[in-house]
Amino acid sequence: MSIPKTQKAVVFETNGGPLEYKEIPVPEPKANEILIHVRYSGVCHTDLHAWKGDWPLPTKLPLVGGHEGAGEVVAVGKNVNGWKIGDLAGIKWLNGSCLSCEFCQKSNESNCPDADLSGYTHDGSFQEYATADAVQAARIPAGTDLAQAAPILCAGITVYKALKTAQLEPGQWVCISGAGGGLGSLAIQYAKAMGYRVAAIDGGDEKGEFCKSLGAEAFIDFTKSKDMVKDVVAATNGGPHGVINVSVSEKAIAQSCEYVRSCGTVVLVGLPAGAQVKTPVFDAVVKSVSIRGSYVGNRADSAEAIDFFARGLIKCPIKVVGMSELPKIYELMEAGKIIGRYVIDTSK
Amino acid sequence: MSIPKTQKAVVFETNGGPLEYKEIPVPEPKANEILIHVRYSGVCHTDLHAWKGDWPLPTKLPLVGGHEGAGEVVAVGKNVNGWKIGDLAGIKWLNGSCLSCEFCQKSNESNCPDADLSGYTHDGSFQEYATADAVQAARIPAGTDLAQAAPILCAGITVYKALKTAQLEPGQWVCISGAGGGLGSLAIQYAKAMGYRVAAIDGGDEKGEFCKSLGAEAFIDFTKSKDMVKDVVAATNGGPHGVINVSVSEKAIAQSCEYVRSCGTVVLVGLPAGAQVKTPVFDAVVKSVSIRGSYVGNRADSAEAIDFFARGLIKCPIKVVGMSELPKIYELMEAGKIIGRYVIDTSK
Amino acid sequence: MSIPKTQKAVVFETNGGPLEYKEIPVPEPKANEILIHVRYSGVCHTDLHAWKGDWPLPTKLPLVGGHEGAGEVVAVGKNVNGWKIGDLAGIKWLNGSCLSCEFCQKSNESNCPDADLSGYTHDGSFQEYATADAVQAARIPAGTDLAQAAPILCAGITVYKALKTAQLEPGQWVCISGAGGGLGSLAIQYAKAMGYRVAAIDGGDEKGEFCKSLGAEAFIDFTKSKDMVKDVVAATNGGPHGVINVSVSEKAIAQSCEYVRSCGTVVLVGLPAGAQVKTPVFDAVVKSVSIRGSYVGNRADSAEAIDFFARGLIKCPIKVVGMSELPKIYELMEAGKIIGRYVIDTSK
Amino acid sequence: MSIPKTQKAVVFETNGGPLEYKEIPVPEPKANEILIHVRYSGVCHTDLHAWKGDWPLPTKLPLVGGHEGAGEVVAVGKNVNGWKIGDLAGIKWLNGSCLSCEFCQKSNESNCPDADLSGYTHDGSFQEYATADAVQAARIPAGTDLAQAAPILCAGITVYKALKTAQLEPGQWVCISGAGGGLGSLAIQYAKAMGYRVAAIDGGDEKGEFCKSLGAEAFIDFTKSKDMVKDVVAATNGGPHGVINVSVSEKAIAQSCEYVRSCGTVVLVGLPAGAQVKTPVFDAVVKSVSIRGSYVGNRADSAEAIDFFARGLIKCPIKVVGMSELPKIYELMEAGKIIGRYVIDTSK
Repeated sequence: MSIPKTQKAVVFETNGGPLEYKEIPVPEPKANEILIHVRYSGVCHTDLHAWKGDWPLPTKLPLVGGHEGAGEVVAVGKNVNGWKIGDLAGIKWLNGSCLSCEFCQKSNESNCPDADLSGYTHDGSFQEYATADAVQAARIPAGTDLAQAAPILCAGITVYKALKTAQLEPGQWVCISGAGGGLGSLAIQYAKAMGYRVAAIDGGDEKGEFCKSLGAEAFIDFTKSKDMVKDVVAATNGGPHGVINVSVSEKAIAQSCEYVRSCGTVVLVGLPAGAQVKTPVFDAVVKSVSIRGSYVGNRADSAEAIDFFARGLIKCPIKVVGMSELPKIYELMEAGKIIGRYVIDTSK
Repeated sequence: MSIPKTQKAVVFETNGGPLEYKEIPVPEPKANEILIHVRYSGVCHTDLHAWKGDWPLPTKLPLVGGHEGAGEVVAVGKNVNGWKIGDLAGIKWLNGSCLSCEFCQKSNESNCPDADLSGYTHDGSFQEYATADAVQAARIPAGTDLAQAAPILCAGITVYKALKTAQLEPGQWVCISGAGGGLGSLAIQYAKAMGYRVAAIDGGDEKGEFCKSLGAEAFIDFTKSKDMVKDVVAATNGGPHGVINVSVSEKAIAQSCEYVRSCGTVVLVGLPAGAQVKTPVFDAVVKSVSIRGSYVGNRADSAEAIDFFARGLIKCPIKVVGMSELPKIYELMEAGKIIGRYVIDTSK
Repeated sequence: MSIPKTQKAVVFETNGGPLEYKEIPVPEPKANEILIHVRYSGVCHTDLHAWKGDWPLPTKLPLVGGHEGAGEVVAVGKNVNGWKIGDLAGIKWLNGSCLSCEFCQKSNESNCPDADLSGYTHDGSFQEYATADAVQAARIPAGTDLAQAAPILCAGITVYKALKTAQLEPGQWVCISGAGGGLGSLAIQYAKAMGYRVAAIDGGDEKGEFCKSLGAEAFIDFTKSKDMVKDVVAATNGGPHGVINVSVSEKAIAQSCEYVRSCGTVVLVGLPAGAQVKTPVFDAVVKSVSIRGSYVGNRADSAEAIDFFARGLIKCPIKVVGMSELPKIYELMEAGKIIGRYVIDTSK
Repeated sequence: MSIPKTQKAVVFETNGGPLEYKEIPVPEPKANEILIHVRYSGVCHTDLHAWKGDWPLPTKLPLVGGHEGAGEVVAVGKNVNGWKIGDLAGIKWLNGSCLSCEFCQKSNESNCPDADLSGYTHDGSFQEYATADAVQAARIPAGTDLAQAAPILCAGITVYKALKTAQLEPGQWVCISGAGGGLGSLAIQYAKAMGYRVAAIDGGDEKGEFCKSLGAEAFIDFTKSKDMVKDVVAATNGGPHGVINVSVSEKAIAQSCEYVRSCGTVVLVGLPAGAQVKTPVFDAVVKSVSIRGSYVGNRADSAEAIDFFARGLIKCPIKVVGMSELPKIYELMEAGKIIGRYVIDTSK
């Protein structure tokens, strides 16, 4: 397989500056890296935050964004074990980690203080050829549809990890707050595949139908409910054992601390720029509630999330567009007009 | 053993009304109860809240308060198994529970919606003879000093449960916020006995000396520190793996969410009337922090907490006064002038 | 509802002695008991062991066997809370426990040294009216088919508990050894409902078809395989993460310790009279394998197992016969000729 | 720091062949390795097994044995992060692992099928300069006594991991079977530091005194007891919650399955060439016992075990001799005449 010297990519020089679709050099993998010919990449809200520079952590500049890239291995660094050319591989948010800190030692590599992040501190998947640390790159089974698989590499892994963080047992109720969106619809499907019972929260009949079609047993419509806490408790026979707050509304999060069952777990999973979780200490104590932040999954979580997808248990409705159209997707995203998941085709 | 018909008790008719030290009938145990000759009872902040009616849940009225009573069994209900006259027994906050709800089924009886609470919904330990559900009453080993043991029955069990809720491993750091007070000083000792490393937070050199004498390896003085978060992180080589918020200050709780180590656990354990826990969602997610409410322990926790005490690993500095002086203790408590733990002698 | 003075029952006076279908007095519930009008009762291998006196623990004599009884409450003891006449209720193997030992305190009441066992130390469900401790009796949702539900009360709970004991995560492989029998076929269905992937072991094409129809993804036929260990490892892509040994053959158990995945769990669940588990220490250590005995479930496990059934996720093929035919069922059982689960109708 | 071209080492060409103390080349670290100037190395039974070729897995040949080496870093491979020349470092049994298999992904790298083993498949610590994978090499705090630390690197980590595998809570009883030997005496100390109560089993008054001096609360002498099971149960008030079988006698292991408390855990930790664990299925089920193999610790376990040592909580009585005397130590070991732990000084 011949690797070109240059390639197409979407690059920005400054946070919030122009998103240029242009020719740049193909990167060379380090000794510990693989080079992946990215075929498709999902577009995630985090990419928008990275471009705009919304978060406390500074991005690399200039930057190629993207962290949901699916493709195949075209080159392998000198010290890499376990990968060969032609393997299908994925680029995740966590591109690499130090492997030696206490968090890496316990498989909590997402919490590594020296984590290297795709599309943030390391050029990401909005280019035809991207590098990834061989240890962290995701393995994708041969024969997988790469366009469909792309959003699993961040969105799928993230909601799967959040569900694990809720520490539920099969047969227990989990409530997905914001269930009708991209993350939420994946969360419903993973929850069902994990043996949980799903109560979905979102607004509008169409969302309700959609959530039920994915496996939700109950739907609570926040545009119609006069008492969300009461209605969620009723729908779940005493409150859900776990809540996945895909929605990042402060009010929705605060409500989730109220309707969660005693001894249950509220999971925070989105990364809103300024939102707070607030709840009365008295209630948290008397109900023995846990509120837990869940970041992205580790390598094992990633492999498991991909495995559920590869077994056909998770469907992800996507719209495929050319990589050159990325600026338009960001515009839609900023305007809150995205429905479903956009996936870019790096060849266009 | 002859049981009198009447006895001395401290009773109030209305929340916040007069605390009367007077003669009342000795209660008769139901079929599932034992009657305990209470010798000593600890006095807890909760007793003050109950008297004043501070909390959403209404108290029984008229009420005999108290939920840290240590004494011996003098009568046994018809259906009681496993208790005999002369056994040492303790009255805990959780006097009885339904035994059949999902929480009772899983040993989370403290979360039973029909929990019966000593000194709150059931006449408590500020009387010479008190009834307790035989299943929930605490077993105290023969030969135990009952005055010393009394505060273990709520304060001890509560901090022990909070430490378990932090889900630490031996050798990890736990920070006790409010370490120099009654609960805090017990928490330091339990933590040490459980193999954890203790960082204590409180104010003033005297408290610092005291905390260290109990086993704290580090002391962070909030009256001197210019940056609590930084100082706690430094003292614990990266932040404590767990935090026990005995202090109920909102600011201290919010700080604890900041200085806790990534993947660590912040435990809420006091019951402040109106305090909130508030923390940025972004940080909770990226650090994968857990915030967990811990209520009182179950029967197993209680037995274990008493066992640590009975093995001589926990010392509880107490002041013993006559039961008739209870109103004065409440006054001191309201004025914030209590140091250490008051224990009443029911015979005086 | 009028309760008769006498009733039909199957009784034996000595272990292995005649099984008499005759008229005996209806028992009276103690203060802590409910009286259940048993409509249907499953017949379990344990009933045969109890009659024959196979186990170290002596049975009550004379004895009414049976511990899978489903019916409705017709009387309630004086101290009973939470039950009312007309509720559907089930009689389980664990009729009652002391509620105060360390095992009861931690919801491990099946391990209570004073456990009272239906059809063993307490007259069981092979009679029209039977008593059960109100705390332990199983709650059956209104409208449930009692004949179908009967076998869930022991067989269902037991395999469900065994699956929990394997401590698997959704998406992991569990192997059911002896999958085509009564317990095994329930185990396949529970495992699938819990999100696990099932590999079934049994002998013959018919069993293979049956197991796959219940949800097994792989079937390994011990009558055809030349190397069971190799074949199970291949079918599960490296060995199952958990094994449920419904089969009590020593050889099958020993093999399960070999084919289980590293870090996996082998669960022992049957109660063979003299079988041993034997495995090389070297392999157990290097593979970090766990071998765990699983007894019957506690109250929470029971409620959960019934809930899966009530949700329609578990089907239990039964043959209903009159109670008077019980001796014939024992004969078939001894001859190893039972296929599926027999359920007796106490009215015939 | 100048690194010589050649060095002293103890080498054997064939399993069981001559142990030659001779001059060999200093190895060169690969890109992912560090080169450690080994100052001291413990001598472990495993080294004897490796030399003799006792186990199913073949050793590298010719081989330099040893896997408890403590020294300092003198060279660092090209791709190594996080190590610098002069750091103290330890060589462990697990020299390196693939970092990409499912076991490595979950921090169970000891179970990696491609594990590289010091003194077995990779030249070990019986030489002055040895290589170690930078990810797996143990970090030793500056200022640590390297001779004392050496045995922690295998013996210490192994018993610490075994104690974690027992999944005990502080205040529970753990029984150390074979408590008076090298591993056992470390196990007593770790158990105590972890907050457990220790019952020690070994033979003879001297061993008894020794075990108690290290913190054992009870000592059961197998040379005197007429009923070990009964005596252990009595000493631990109902049986230990966990058992660490440092002793590899089949009889002792079988007994441990009997005296362990219901719901307790028996840990297998030694690697006897042919021993079996055997126990009745009936008892394992009714008591809900877990039998778990524990191999060596992962990186986090290793760091924790070293931390307990560095904090001064673990003392390891050693005898230091020159490396050239290694053959004599093997002779003593084979004759069963070793008391305490031998440590070799590589400079002699």
